Amino acid sequence: MLFTPREEIQGRIDKLRPLIEKASIDGVFFHYKIDYFYLSGTMQDSLLFVPLEGKPILFVKREIGRARRESPLDEIVPIRSMKDIKPYIGNLKRVGLQLDVVPYNDVIKFKSILGDVELVNASPLTQELRKKKSPFEIGLMERAASITKKVYELVPNVLKEGMMEIELGGILEAYAKTLGHESLLRVRSLNYEAYSWHILSGRTGSIVSQSDSPMGGLGLSPAFPVGASMKKIKRDEPILVDFGGCYHGYQSDQTRMFAIGHMPDMYVKAYEVCREIHYRVLDKALLGVSGRELFEYSKGLAKEAGFGDYYLGYEPHKVRFLAHGIGLELSEMPFIAHRTDYPIEEGMTFAIEPKMVFPKKGSAGFENTVLMEKGSYRVLTDIDENIIIV
Amino acid sequence: MLFTPREEIQGRIDKLRPLIEKASIDGVFFHYKIDYFYLSGTMQDSLLFVPLEGKPILFVKREIGRARRESPLDEIVPIRSMKDIKPYIGNLKRVGLQLDVVPYNDVIKFKSILGDVELVNASPLTQELRKKKSPFEIGLMERAASITKKVYELVPNVLKEGMMEIELGGILEAYAKTLGHESLLRVRSLNYEAYSWHILSGRTGSIVSQSDSPMGGLGLSPAFPVGASMKKIKRDEPILVDFGGCYHGYQSDQTRMFAIGHMPDMYVKAYEVCREIHYRVLDKALLGVSGRELFEYSKGLAKEAGFGDYYLGYEPHKVRFLAHGIGLELSEMPFIAHRTDYPIEEGMTFAIEPKMVFPKKGSAGFENTVLMEKGSYRVLTDIDENIIIV
Repeated sequence: MLFTPREEIQGRIDKLRPLIEKASIDGVFFHYKIDYFYLSGTMQDSLLFVPLEGKPILFVKREIGRARRESPLDEIVPIRSMKDIKPYIGNLKRVGLQLDVVPYNDVIKFKSILGDVELVNASPLTQELRKKKSPFEIGLMERAASITKKVYELVPNVLKEGMMEIELGGILEAYAKTLGHESLLRVRSLNYEAYSWHILSGRTGSIVSQSDSPMGGLGLSPAFPVGASMKKIKRDEPILVDFGGCYHGYQSDQTRMFAIGHMPDMYVKAYEVCREIHYRVLDKALLGVSGRELFEYSKGLAKEAGFGDYYLGYEPHKVRFLAHGIGLELSEMPFIAHRTDYPIEEGMTFAIEPKMVFPKKGSAGFENTVLMEKGSYRVLTDIDENIIIV
Repeated sequence: MLFTPREEIQGRIDKLRPLIEKASIDGVFFHYKIDYFYLSGTMQDSLLFVPLEGKPILFVKREIGRARRESPLDEIVPIRSMKDIKPYIGNLKRVGLQLDVVPYNDVIKFKSILGDVELVNASPLTQELRKKKSPFEIGLMERAASITKKVYELVPNVLKEGMMEIELGGILEAYAKTLGHESLLRVRSLNYEAYSWHILSGRTGSIVSQSDSPMGGLGLSPAFPVGASMKKIKRDEPILVDFGGCYHGYQSDQTRMFAIGHMPDMYVKAYEVCREIHYRVLDKALLGVSGRELFEYSKGLAKEAGFGDYYLGYEPHKVRFLAHGIGLELSEMPFIAHRTDYPIEEGMTFAIEPKMVFPKKGSAGFENTVLMEKGSYRVLTDIDENIIIV
């Protein structure tokens, strides 16, 4: 089991400090585990305090022994309840909290412990930081991508006519787990869940659901209305496999297409157009233009190719993003979307996913997790790009 | 795919109304999908408004067509943003929101739409309602339990010396999915996640983690520090399989023990004591005593049997509950715990899980999902109760 190195954690804290200062905050408390993991190396039940000056303090409810082994921070203090932090934190006036995710009641309760303080949402600080990945993080994402590569290589060996979408999903996931896949895809949302088993075949590829995705799939029930379903996979229909992987908390995301027997021409064409859009957008991203410009450019390419009505979904269900950042969360900064006003820069990782959805018919799509490197980009999900026919 | 019947939803709304009145609330908004699913039948991206009088209104962001098919409610209105609800809701003074789970910023934003209103946490209302299950809900839990029964029957056929815990977990989960298992175990918490693959063998059964459980397991990494690990399963060690199932959103939870070759006597004895505690507590629960009394009674039984130091964990990591309610969430009302002041009543479903943890050695445990019925109880997870040796 790999622990986050001391210099890695120190580097992140060092980058966070100027952002805290710039926001005129006296100190930030991290309640949400994704962010305190990023800054401490542990997901034990904790609360991380990063003051503007002085050492960060990790308050741990459970389990202190593991937190001490996993986190290289110097100050790790066991607590039984939130009140126990009081003697450690000094006099604060303006305090950062993760107001976008911490429940209302928890914030109010925490404020009653801190006393008369002004609260500021500190999530933009870590979101900004996490936008660019360190070599250590990229290494973990490469591991995640190497797991999913093997998963895609398994598909032609196990895909059979008449098997249920969810059956295929289960087999792939079971295999991925033996390679270290951690199965949960974390998203920063109260209601949105993502699953590894996003496998859609034929008509289920045209079904929209609650997720902000061109196609949601049928899912298993009204309580799980996204992803693979009990539908049986047939011959000669498009099979879209969008299998998210996760290694030591870091995710990879990609989409490839399969068919049993024959892939109908419309989907072959749509897939090729998606692949072309994917690479032409990446090439253009190297010029340093904004995400919005890249998004509009991609729409133009889809229209030119005759797929404008189907690109990123059909009306009124089109989505307004082409790429989402990826790392500890499945959907984080940066985005290539209708409102993104920043360019894609060195060190950023994102999943770029041009997809075409044909109402009541099916869908085609291509997706990779990509790293922006000095003067170029690198596809981390280095998987056969051909449509695979079994 | 099964939709929630109209009379079922109507019955739940009818029971909610007096609780709204009692709390002197003008109307309640449900943002969190577990509760709006309970009251509407859909998990599409929605916001449910239940006024003190008049018809509930389901505001749907995505996807309106599915919401209309899944929900029997009469008033289902598409919205693009929260602001669009304004014309529908009239003049409210005291408003219920799910303040225990909805993020602070969302509450503040929502309040700015509602104007000058007093906010009340409405979650206790649905938690109270959901404490007792209807025959429809019990039917779904029986289906979940029938899936997990088959999963446990598969274990002796696939369990092999040298396989990793997570490998066994993956195989069981893949099989469960073909039967309709939905894989995610939902909990009402920002940071706590539960996995189906809670499989601990030998020493990993003694490892504590961030979860409020007697044993958390080693997990896969500091980012997934709970449940099955890459540890290889050996001969002659206790193997604890705590595999949560889920069908149409409703969960079942149980634990059984396995061994390859031979189960050491200490674990056999501990398992038998757990089983005895489980049944004796259920018998006593029929007398209508409080959860606290049942909890203390169980501690007395464990001590009498010589297992006091290991019961529900070892110091300082003992947990203070013996049973948790179960349904749409893995941990909901009712509880049998150190502070529960109500009795277990007809219609309640809960997972009762006496467990023994031996520091640095391993653990043993027994668990069932149980329904309280008129004058008796019924074990829904009707699975072979013997330790299985392969």
